[in-house]
Amino acid sequence: MQPQLDQLKKILNEVADLSAATSVLSWDQQTYMPEGGSEDRGDALATLSGLAHTRFTSEEVGKLLDDLSTGIDQLNPDSDEARLIKVTRHNYEKNTRVPSEKVAEFARVTTVAQSVWARARAENNYALFMPHLKKIIELRQEYAGLFTPYDHIYDPLLDDYEPGLKTADVQAIFNVLRPQQVALLQAIHERPQVNDNFLRQKFDEEKQWHFGVDVITRFGYDWKRGRQDRSAHPFTIAFGTGDVRITTRFEPEYGGSALFSTMHECGHALYEQGVNPAYRRTPLSGGASMAIHESQSRLWENLVGRSLPFWKYFYPKFQRTFPEILGNVDLMTFYKGINKVEPSFIRTESDEATYNLHIMLRLELEIALIEGSLDVKDLPEAWNERMHEYLGITPPNNKVGVLQDVHWAGGMFGYFPTYALGNLVSVQLWECIQRDLPNLDDQLARGEFSQLLAWLRKNVHVYGSKYEPQELVQKITGSRINPQPYIRYLQTKYGEIYQL
Amino acid sequence: MQPQLDQLKKILNEVADLSAATSVLSWDQQTYMPEGGSEDRGDALATLSGLAHTRFTSEEVGKLLDDLSTGIDQLNPDSDEARLIKVTRHNYEKNTRVPSEKVAEFARVTTVAQSVWARARAENNYALFMPHLKKIIELRQEYAGLFTPYDHIYDPLLDDYEPGLKTADVQAIFNVLRPQQVALLQAIHERPQVNDNFLRQKFDEEKQWHFGVDVITRFGYDWKRGRQDRSAHPFTIAFGTGDVRITTRFEPEYGGSALFSTMHECGHALYEQGVNPAYRRTPLSGGASMAIHESQSRLWENLVGRSLPFWKYFYPKFQRTFPEILGNVDLMTFYKGINKVEPSFIRTESDEATYNLHIMLRLELEIALIEGSLDVKDLPEAWNERMHEYLGITPPNNKVGVLQDVHWAGGMFGYFPTYALGNLVSVQLWECIQRDLPNLDDQLARGEFSQLLAWLRKNVHVYGSKYEPQELVQKITGSRINPQPYIRYLQTKYGEIYQL
Repeated sequence: MQPQLDQLKKILNEVADLSAATSVLSWDQQTYMPEGGSEDRGDALATLSGLAHTRFTSEEVGKLLDDLSTGIDQLNPDSDEARLIKVTRHNYEKNTRVPSEKVAEFARVTTVAQSVWARARAENNYALFMPHLKKIIELRQEYAGLFTPYDHIYDPLLDDYEPGLKTADVQAIFNVLRPQQVALLQAIHERPQVNDNFLRQKFDEEKQWHFGVDVITRFGYDWKRGRQDRSAHPFTIAFGTGDVRITTRFEPEYGGSALFSTMHECGHALYEQGVNPAYRRTPLSGGASMAIHESQSRLWENLVGRSLPFWKYFYPKFQRTFPEILGNVDLMTFYKGINKVEPSFIRTESDEATYNLHIMLRLELEIALIEGSLDVKDLPEAWNERMHEYLGITPPNNKVGVLQDVHWAGGMFGYFPTYALGNLVSVQLWECIQRDLPNLDDQLARGEFSQLLAWLRKNVHVYGSKYEPQELVQKITGSRINPQPYIRYLQTKYGEIYQL
Repeated sequence: MQPQLDQLKKILNEVADLSAATSVLSWDQQTYMPEGGSEDRGDALATLSGLAHTRFTSEEVGKLLDDLSTGIDQLNPDSDEARLIKVTRHNYEKNTRVPSEKVAEFARVTTVAQSVWARARAENNYALFMPHLKKIIELRQEYAGLFTPYDHIYDPLLDDYEPGLKTADVQAIFNVLRPQQVALLQAIHERPQVNDNFLRQKFDEEKQWHFGVDVITRFGYDWKRGRQDRSAHPFTIAFGTGDVRITTRFEPEYGGSALFSTMHECGHALYEQGVNPAYRRTPLSGGASMAIHESQSRLWENLVGRSLPFWKYFYPKFQRTFPEILGNVDLMTFYKGINKVEPSFIRTESDEATYNLHIMLRLELEIALIEGSLDVKDLPEAWNERMHEYLGITPPNNKVGVLQDVHWAGGMFGYFPTYALGNLVSVQLWECIQRDLPNLDDQLARGEFSQLLAWLRKNVHVYGSKYEPQELVQKITGSRINPQPYIRYLQTKYGEIYQL
């Protein structure tokens, strides 16, 4: 079967090259491209994606996979080769099941929907967006229908972001998590509140930039295999393990914005930089799933970057960097400030104690939309009711409510839960790390991250997408994705901050 | 024939998209890519080029061109459609005549040769490079042989850079030009020399950058359709007419370096920004040839940027920008300084009066190498003899002699003459512009370039590569490429500066 495997790899290499080229064009589009480049860039991106799709979904690939499926039993099922064939087969099935007219229609409909959504949000006009959302839901239902039999119609959508994960699994996890987070939030609400006014002012951007660079350099971000630029929305993008770039942005009215964003993106980037180089130009490169990726970004952003040990080391430097602002703010006041809990209408501005509630609300609604048990016309009301139930606040308008995120306009049903799952996984891993590195807090308090990074490299990063997310979490932690560690973490952390 | 034409355009659009993507990857490689990205970038570039080549040289394209060749007689031969078919046919012939093993072999041999050349130059070791050069010449001879019958074996090589131009044409032009430039140089040599010591010091880079930006903004460079970055070697690159980027660099010991480089690249970029947008994503986009492109860069760099009227406007600003350096240097001293004539060993450092001599020397040698009348082992001696004959100086070593340029190591036989032809064309155009805009000098002296740019847009830029270079020059100036205007220009300009 070696000749077939070699030929398959050759094609996968070409597809990976096209995908890397697409990523370079996309990075450039979001960082440096002048506005005049839009039209040609759109055409070039469409051509590259089309060629990659055509090449990957060719009959030749199907034939090679069929030939290889007979020989796969002779391989160790845990070998890179067997896994490469398995992952490729999974992607091939998903990509070939959809007629190309449908792929094109979905691209067309979501492109229009995104620009209508932007206007609808600006004008606080849900009715404008509603028919587009309705059409997208129909198309997603139709898409899911191509993958019957399934346990739940949402399964094929979820699988696009979390291979192998089932709707029932996620619901079971969230049903345990939700009441605990709601109860915690109520308990916090009854305690004296934290002051973070000192953060809500202008911090010099140049200094923020350099501070962030210093921090992630200590984390272990390899600047010979990456760089940081500015963009409207921060992101991480990999063109292979040798070139993994991040971006950041500055919010004029919040001092920590660029720093936490930089640490977050660095977490994603360390993952990509750490994938086994032997997987380059194959589907095994890159992260295992969105949730596993998010576990890495949130681990560095929150479990490291919002922890007291981290700031024991970095706060004196941060204070010296912004003496006029922080000269009279002591470490504990600062630490509490950056961890202030406050229900917000906006997901992207929410803290660790409330973030998952935003996600659970969205997941419940999108499952109901896809199931057909919720009509799009009733969506804003359902949104606002749940906001009140989970977070105790009611959006004054749809702009800061149901219209706030681009995901549904982009057709990305199945994406939202990965944010919350990433949070859960980050703490599951963290408990293992604390067991394996008993003096981890001391290391963080000395600004030392090399053992932490080495642990992640060895246990998570190196595997790329060889394993499905549940498999990987099981392999590392001994259990599947599980909300208990995260609940414990929140209770301990906020128990101390709010003296619960 | 419309369906065939539409299908041909569809394929050409895809090929253009792949080529634009290649250019974005290449721009990134030369500006921002971290060193770790090299390996994957090399693979991605090879895949994109390969796909573009395969798509363009497919039998389908050949069939479409054959079908269209029967209908082309019904088209106006000067119509965009007829020209598109003609240009495409020409490119198709050139690309399909070469077996793909030969394309790959040439890429391999020149890749190795370029790295050997870099070492040979560093070590002043021509013998190290010689066998590689010998092999490249053999491959170029073999390549030329695929295009028999020809008038001269160098014709097919020249045609790669200057479609339709013949070796005999270039030789005839240069045979007139050379003795005149040699005589001028001798006359200058006998006069008191110009002092430019004030330029040979460190000028603040930030200030140089901003001055250059101000100048080209006035030229009419459209920043909404372009940007400037830094790179080791300045270049211009277009991803379509809507995104045409330039780069610049700073030499530590010469004040004007970045400014003249910026004006030069801006000249290339104005050309690309001015091509008819209807030609986008087809072979009619981009410049007509290397020489026509160079005519645009040299026009803005030299005929504008080294002229007295230009500096009448800009010198007071330049002086205010660098008051410590230029406070006591008056306009005429400065003007003479930037136009100092001084035979140099190095082509890229040479002035307007000597530059073409460097080119003619190279052209004569490369024709002799390709003809087989000069053996590679005798090349350094032939180089040094001609340097003495034309420029009156003898290189002390091969490092600053025959090993100075990368072109031969890259297999770019046929490229050198385009630099000198560009100079000639720039002045042919300039004479027409002076006729059409009689108060051009006054405009330049007021910092006004809009009429000049409009003239170039209308007469040169808009046509893209619809016409072959000789055709285009004939159409605009009424004669083919001709050395007399350039000779007149040099005699007048340096007659004044050196009081000949």
